[in-house]
Amino acid sequence: MSGMTVPSQKKLMLFGGRAFPELAAEVADCMGIEVAPARLYDFANGEIMVRFLESVRGSDAFVLQSHTAPINQWIMEQLIMVDALKRASAKRITVVMPFFGYARQDKKSRGREPISARLVADLFATAGADRLMAVDLHTAQIQGFFDGPVDHLFALPILAGYLESKLNVSNVTVVAPDAGRVRVCERWTDRLGTPLAIIHKRRDPDVANQVKVFEVVGHVKGRTCILVDDMIDTGGTIVKAADALFEQGAERVIVAATHGVLSGPAVDTLKNSRITEVVITNTLPVSQEQRFDKLTVLSIAPLLARAINEVFSDGSVTSLFDGQS
Amino acid sequence: MSGMTVPSQKKLMLFGGRAFPELAAEVADCMGIEVAPARLYDFANGEIMVRFLESVRGSDAFVLQSHTAPINQWIMEQLIMVDALKRASAKRITVVMPFFGYARQDKKSRGREPISARLVADLFATAGADRLMAVDLHTAQIQGFFDGPVDHLFALPILAGYLESKLNVSNVTVVAPDAGRVRVCERWTDRLGTPLAIIHKRRDPDVANQVKVFEVVGHVKGRTCILVDDMIDTGGTIVKAADALFEQGAERVIVAATHGVLSGPAVDTLKNSRITEVVITNTLPVSQEQRFDKLTVLSIAPLLARAINEVFSDGSVTSLFDGQS
Amino acid sequence: MSGMTVPSQKKLMLFGGRAFPELAAEVADCMGIEVAPARLYDFANGEIMVRFLESVRGSDAFVLQSHTAPINQWIMEQLIMVDALKRASAKRITVVMPFFGYARQDKKSRGREPISARLVADLFATAGADRLMAVDLHTAQIQGFFDGPVDHLFALPILAGYLESKLNVSNVTVVAPDAGRVRVCERWTDRLGTPLAIIHKRRDPDVANQVKVFEVVGHVKGRTCILVDDMIDTGGTIVKAADALFEQGAERVIVAATHGVLSGPAVDTLKNSRITEVVITNTLPVSQEQRFDKLTVLSIAPLLARAINEVFSDGSVTSLFDGQS
Amino acid sequence: MSGMTVPSQKKLMLFGGRAFPELAAEVADCMGIEVAPARLYDFANGEIMVRFLESVRGSDAFVLQSHTAPINQWIMEQLIMVDALKRASAKRITVVMPFFGYARQDKKSRGREPISARLVADLFATAGADRLMAVDLHTAQIQGFFDGPVDHLFALPILAGYLESKLNVSNVTVVAPDAGRVRVCERWTDRLGTPLAIIHKRRDPDVANQVKVFEVVGHVKGRTCILVDDMIDTGGTIVKAADALFEQGAERVIVAATHGVLSGPAVDTLKNSRITEVVITNTLPVSQEQRFDKLTVLSIAPLLARAINEVFSDGSVTSLFDGQS
Amino acid sequence: MSGMTVPSQKKLMLFGGRAFPELAAEVADCMGIEVAPARLYDFANGEIMVRFLESVRGSDAFVLQSHTAPINQWIMEQLIMVDALKRASAKRITVVMPFFGYARQDKKSRGREPISARLVADLFATAGADRLMAVDLHTAQIQGFFDGPVDHLFALPILAGYLESKLNVSNVTVVAPDAGRVRVCERWTDRLGTPLAIIHKRRDPDVANQVKVFEVVGHVKGRTCILVDDMIDTGGTIVKAADALFEQGAERVIVAATHGVLSGPAVDTLKNSRITEVVITNTLPVSQEQRFDKLTVLSIAPLLARAINEVFSDGSVTSLFDGQS
Amino acid sequence: MSGMTVPSQKKLMLFGGRAFPELAAEVADCMGIEVAPARLYDFANGEIMVRFLESVRGSDAFVLQSHTAPINQWIMEQLIMVDALKRASAKRITVVMPFFGYARQDKKSRGREPISARLVADLFATAGADRLMAVDLHTAQIQGFFDGPVDHLFALPILAGYLESKLNVSNVTVVAPDAGRVRVCERWTDRLGTPLAIIHKRRDPDVANQVKVFEVVGHVKGRTCILVDDMIDTGGTIVKAADALFEQGAERVIVAATHGVLSGPAVDTLKNSRITEVVITNTLPVSQEQRFDKLTVLSIAPLLARAINEVFSDGSVTSLFDGQS
Repeated sequence: MSGMTVPSQKKLMLFGGRAFPELAAEVADCMGIEVAPARLYDFANGEIMVRFLESVRGSDAFVLQSHTAPINQWIMEQLIMVDALKRASAKRITVVMPFFGYARQDKKSRGREPISARLVADLFATAGADRLMAVDLHTAQIQGFFDGPVDHLFALPILAGYLESKLNVSNVTVVAPDAGRVRVCERWTDRLGTPLAIIHKRRDPDVANQVKVFEVVGHVKGRTCILVDDMIDTGGTIVKAADALFEQGAERVIVAATHGVLSGPAVDTLKNSRITEVVITNTLPVSQEQRFDKLTVLSIAPLLARAINEVFSDGSVTSLFDGQS
Repeated sequence: MSGMTVPSQKKLMLFGGRAFPELAAEVADCMGIEVAPARLYDFANGEIMVRFLESVRGSDAFVLQSHTAPINQWIMEQLIMVDALKRASAKRITVVMPFFGYARQDKKSRGREPISARLVADLFATAGADRLMAVDLHTAQIQGFFDGPVDHLFALPILAGYLESKLNVSNVTVVAPDAGRVRVCERWTDRLGTPLAIIHKRRDPDVANQVKVFEVVGHVKGRTCILVDDMIDTGGTIVKAADALFEQGAERVIVAATHGVLSGPAVDTLKNSRITEVVITNTLPVSQEQRFDKLTVLSIAPLLARAINEVFSDGSVTSLFDGQS
Repeated sequence: MSGMTVPSQKKLMLFGGRAFPELAAEVADCMGIEVAPARLYDFANGEIMVRFLESVRGSDAFVLQSHTAPINQWIMEQLIMVDALKRASAKRITVVMPFFGYARQDKKSRGREPISARLVADLFATAGADRLMAVDLHTAQIQGFFDGPVDHLFALPILAGYLESKLNVSNVTVVAPDAGRVRVCERWTDRLGTPLAIIHKRRDPDVANQVKVFEVVGHVKGRTCILVDDMIDTGGTIVKAADALFEQGAERVIVAATHGVLSGPAVDTLKNSRITEVVITNTLPVSQEQRFDKLTVLSIAPLLARAINEVFSDGSVTSLFDGQS
Repeated sequence: MSGMTVPSQKKLMLFGGRAFPELAAEVADCMGIEVAPARLYDFANGEIMVRFLESVRGSDAFVLQSHTAPINQWIMEQLIMVDALKRASAKRITVVMPFFGYARQDKKSRGREPISARLVADLFATAGADRLMAVDLHTAQIQGFFDGPVDHLFALPILAGYLESKLNVSNVTVVAPDAGRVRVCERWTDRLGTPLAIIHKRRDPDVANQVKVFEVVGHVKGRTCILVDDMIDTGGTIVKAADALFEQGAERVIVAATHGVLSGPAVDTLKNSRITEVVITNTLPVSQEQRFDKLTVLSIAPLLARAINEVFSDGSVTSLFDGQS
Repeated sequence: MSGMTVPSQKKLMLFGGRAFPELAAEVADCMGIEVAPARLYDFANGEIMVRFLESVRGSDAFVLQSHTAPINQWIMEQLIMVDALKRASAKRITVVMPFFGYARQDKKSRGREPISARLVADLFATAGADRLMAVDLHTAQIQGFFDGPVDHLFALPILAGYLESKLNVSNVTVVAPDAGRVRVCERWTDRLGTPLAIIHKRRDPDVANQVKVFEVVGHVKGRTCILVDDMIDTGGTIVKAADALFEQGAERVIVAATHGVLSGPAVDTLKNSRITEVVITNTLPVSQEQRFDKLTVLSIAPLLARAINEVFSDGSVTSLFDGQS
Repeated sequence: MSGMTVPSQKKLMLFGGRAFPELAAEVADCMGIEVAPARLYDFANGEIMVRFLESVRGSDAFVLQSHTAPINQWIMEQLIMVDALKRASAKRITVVMPFFGYARQDKKSRGREPISARLVADLFATAGADRLMAVDLHTAQIQGFFDGPVDHLFALPILAGYLESKLNVSNVTVVAPDAGRVRVCERWTDRLGTPLAIIHKRRDPDVANQVKVFEVVGHVKGRTCILVDDMIDTGGTIVKAADALFEQGAERVIVAATHGVLSGPAVDTLKNSRITEVVITNTLPVSQEQRFDKLTVLSIAPLLARAINEVFSDGSVTSLFDGQS
């Protein structure tokens, strides 16, 4: 035989963008490794530059970026990181986006609109991504926007575990803030063994062109309500939902959401509301200014670390993925 | 100049598979054309053969197939038709599937499952489809499974128009049979100006591992309920939902669904139920044996004909598409 | 260095569709492994569902399906299996189709026909297949329809080995039933050292538009003729060929074919013919009702098992592949 | 409406490579147009340069090249022409290769061989070809190597028409020089109403490892034999076939082949043979030095011109294509 | 014939992003049309939303965006616009980016860097772009990063025309600020008939690791120097180059550049320099605050308008493109 | 678990085309392996045939070809080799082209030209190349023409090392023969610590349409000049540049170039010039007839061998690549 043969190895490397470097560091820490060293910076006109400072040849690369504001910049940075890894001969590239940017634009609700969530999936495929990893996609169908493996993780065990340890579950009702969240809430009621209620937004027949009335469906009087959502953006809707619950006699309202987008007036809106506690994870960074007494931020890092480790080692523990809560 | 220049023309051609040739004929009739002649047949071992009997060069081809049972055979036939058109130099190929087969498998609900709806979209793209046209997709996100234009039509005006002409709308309540249909039902209430109710399936805490209780959310007593669904498959769930409505005092229950899949025991189940009327369209064929007194089948052909005409003529009437009811 | 490095392993997994589970089991048995556990079932309307019950991450997956009737269903099932494996992070996917469905439609013989064999190859590539494995393709050019490795296996050693042990080879003549099979028959004569004859189908000048006359080219009088074909579909042609041989004085006619499609009247046609023996392999299932005294079914499983093993272990034994008999 | 709308036109342009500019000129002449002006030249190290001298924007471009020696150079030139047209905004590009280079390498006959015919099809697709046009492909399956329309033309009417006008058809036998040509010869016998014979190459059992014996199957004594082949390369085989026919008493042997490759010793071999006449077309150039008394070269240009015209005008005359003789 | 045939038309539509809507409006004005109406806005977390307010079916769409700061946002907006047009059945999509963002990252200058200019080209192709149009690419090779037509326009006639009308050309010397611009400067000297000089940046041997010395090559004493560059970013380098010219006795220094990036301190740096005049175009927006006495901004709109018109009408006026000045 | 698991290995194999087999042999020798055995030959009409004589399954294949004359033939041969490796299940294929053919056609300098360098990159990707390796690309942007890793090697250390050992560096000036080479020359001056000069080609105002005057910029009087270029094709330009240097009083002129294309009259031109020495590498073969006293050919094989080894072993020694001299 004419060639040369050696045993093969595989090497995991973790890369982090600038959107939220603390999360990558925390994930690395959970895994007992370090984030791969890189130089990431902007040119004067805002163009992003990336250079990795260590060989990535043959690596099983995981590229973590948090799709926080300015979201387009951080998506582009992650695309550029993937391009650099592809050209530097990484063997396999998994894009880790704990919050999948543009996930809400997952369909055309009217003519001549984009489907930006599909576009984002395609952009990463074009840049060189072999796989995606995300936490609590806005709709599960987004998995199908990528032509390859998508590791879909669930924050439910983290959020629910925290609340179980604090609350008397027998007095809890899980509440879906809108129809789109009912299915997720059913996972909560399955785990907690609690009843379910729904906030139904009805058009007020007396007012033109406005979603107006928040109807509470189910019994919440005297109950501790857990309002479960995938993300809190401006907080307006969730506060109105909480108000509706209090009006129906809810004793306490706790909001549990995976992604703390916390845009615009969100912090003030939540702080000044009657909501008892807001529990989120750090899929997106929460600055010191955004923190307030009622806010609890749980770390998503251990979940990401375990998932990355499973993917790297071809593990058979499927309990993390695909909704096996 | 060295070449030759002539004014260009465009030519619409409509092709129909064997699953439901009457529908293609009806669509052609609405348009004042004829279905393009073709030979479609099976070899002894079930392999399908297609040959078109007229030139299709340069045509704007619309290929209609109804994804009825045996569904895999008819999907494959449509793929083969598209391949033959591509190789015969059709200019543009629009796959018309009034009912999008495998639409329900639009996500992985557990690990190691396929996303067959994305697969179907990819198979048609591979065969040569430039565009898709479908009626009432199971979830709107399926539009994003195809990398190109998807004409998403709505049967609501057909179904609702029929019912408006028969019913006293002021006594009607629109009912969603499960959480996934609420958004569609809201389009109905917007049109009819009626209240909404929801059937909520709750796990009975006394019985292990079973969806059991059908709770009616909203007021149905003495009302004419229109249960709105995208499809009726075996009919089991919709009949249970109707029963729950009657138990809550509903006066009449009418079922309105776009796709009459009517599998297995569906006909008997519906016939023997307390449901007052079942209204569907003919996106899928309904045989004489499947017809019964309470069943009304409205034709989807005029809608398809208008949509095909708009696509062909680059029309600006967007009211057909994308949910503009 | 910032990451973590471990030795890498590779894992073979064998998956079987529902078309012919006994064959997958037999192949697994030859390899000393088990078919990977899976749930495969139909929904009421015929849509197929697949779920694998064990982790397939990083596996070298071989997906065996027999393209028997209902052929379109089993092709679709295999496509869906491949999609599920791709999304579940299998490392490499080899589609094993002992009989390549639609192989006869490998060219346009008239205008506006499909090339379905190319389409089938493309569909599997789209679903996620990295490689194909097949036995005795209808034409060798089909290898070129797939943009990747095709393991093309030959049943000749199995069929010829069986006949050598039974027959006095010095009295044998190998007969090609039509022009398309001459090349394969030459492999037989090379191995057996026997003469060759050909059945030539000539249009009878006295009868319009009909293939009529089966002319025997070569000497068959008093000989044991082995009629070699790739498949027996309805059996009509092969029986006529045998009759022509008997008319020319053949002593015995044995039919040897790789694929026992055995459609429609095939069993009766063969049973009632003057053919002495029919020898096929089990690339396609042969039911108890299809078996008859003169029929011998040899197992293809050991050949598939050896080939899969070679592919998995990057073996250098090329004798199985590409016509090296 | 905000844009501007004008009637659209389409423009045919014909481009010719340097391999055989006379053929492109002749085709243009048949169509009443001129070959589009271009500069084509080699740099000192053999790299080819192309520039078109007239706008090609929006054109329906036909790029004709003859795959003659040095074949790799001319294939590359045609690829580069296609690239330049694509980048210059041609609307549609049809690659016209009267002789499809590498067509004989259409399968792996042993392990670790290429399938160069598929590769050539893929290279043209990559360069930007939308469609292919070729005359008498070595095997019809090559149509399936291209994922798009292939216009497959037949020289039979040209060759047969010429011979019909010269010969007493009632004394003619059509002869296939090997098994691979039988199907084409059947098209000849269908047209001429003549009998068929076959040359069967048999391994001489007395000589190791050599194809040796040319057996004539069928009756040729006293007949005018037309030996039909797709190409004449070195001429060795066809001359041996003719000799075998003469040995069996053939009166005259005429060779009819579409492609006059005429490599190496071909001209001398044919000139010095007992063959009565050799009839070919000019899909490949035949130089003055290659011409000899017994050689007749018929022009393929009118056929190409009609086919290009049909494609451009979306014509329905399918008689040129796909074997409709 | 079974279908329906009508004459075909083509329709130009122009779309503008939010980065610099005045430019799109000016281009539309030059063409006598209007920019197609659209709604473009940001969600609270910065995700961009697009909806076109008029049918775009079958249109020849030109999508203009200026890649100014925040550059990643405007690139993403343009990608989303293209996606929406593709899904709304635009027939052809030309991405017009007067300044091609990330053009400077057109190669890896060290290991593990991206090639972001290729990535940008690929992202637009993925979103659905059929063609690109840009003015004065940083390097001409970027044309090759896109697999399709690139209309490469030159601002030279605009810039040089303006200066010719102001200056005594006989006293002008054209100066390249670095080696990369020499080729462009040669186009200027060809047009103006003036001599050339070059600024050569040499590492000062006495100072470690710094580009230091700006050497003037050629004669500039007493001359009016035109420093020609493709873009002015921070202005630092161009001012140093001008200083070197003044030190060598230049009488006046005029800077002519296509793209006024004008990042960070650029305006102050230029205003306070000894440069006589700075001439740029408006491929990027120049705000009122960025304008200063010595700055002249020429409009690129007429050039874009003419080019778009040529592309739409398949014009043969190639003088705009590919360096034909 | 149902499958079987084994440790995985990787195997390097080196393949060489017929253009310059001695180089592949030398590279193999440097690595202590042998070139993989293969049969490569031409059919009579020039079509190339390839067959590898040893299993390549699972191999990490490196395919070396020298793009020398006849360049189109050798490019095609390398494409065919890649196709054969892909179909034979090589795991990864790296195309090694020490000289990248068609690199000079890396942009359209006028309308309706090809970008052949991009085309070549695309052709190799289509054939099955995963990676490219090349030495001293004509422009670095060519890296961006391939959508994957490109190992860009530099001959500078070889050429400069040789000259350092022969020359008194303190008397050396590095000279760029045109503007396109200045950047490479700066790498030389950085290494040697010498001054730089440039040859500036100016159009003679007295002579129409001709590049005429070779101006020397910088001081060369009494100096040993090293003229650095990427390739020597016909040698005409480099000899004129040397003459200009001698006219300005240069003492000696040494030409250092990576690629010795040496087309047409190159050898005589160089031999008869006043150039003192010509130093090249053997990225392209130099025949005995092409050798002359003043010519020194250094071997590129050790550099290629080290690079291949690094790529195979995922090495971290990046000093070979991407310009890290």
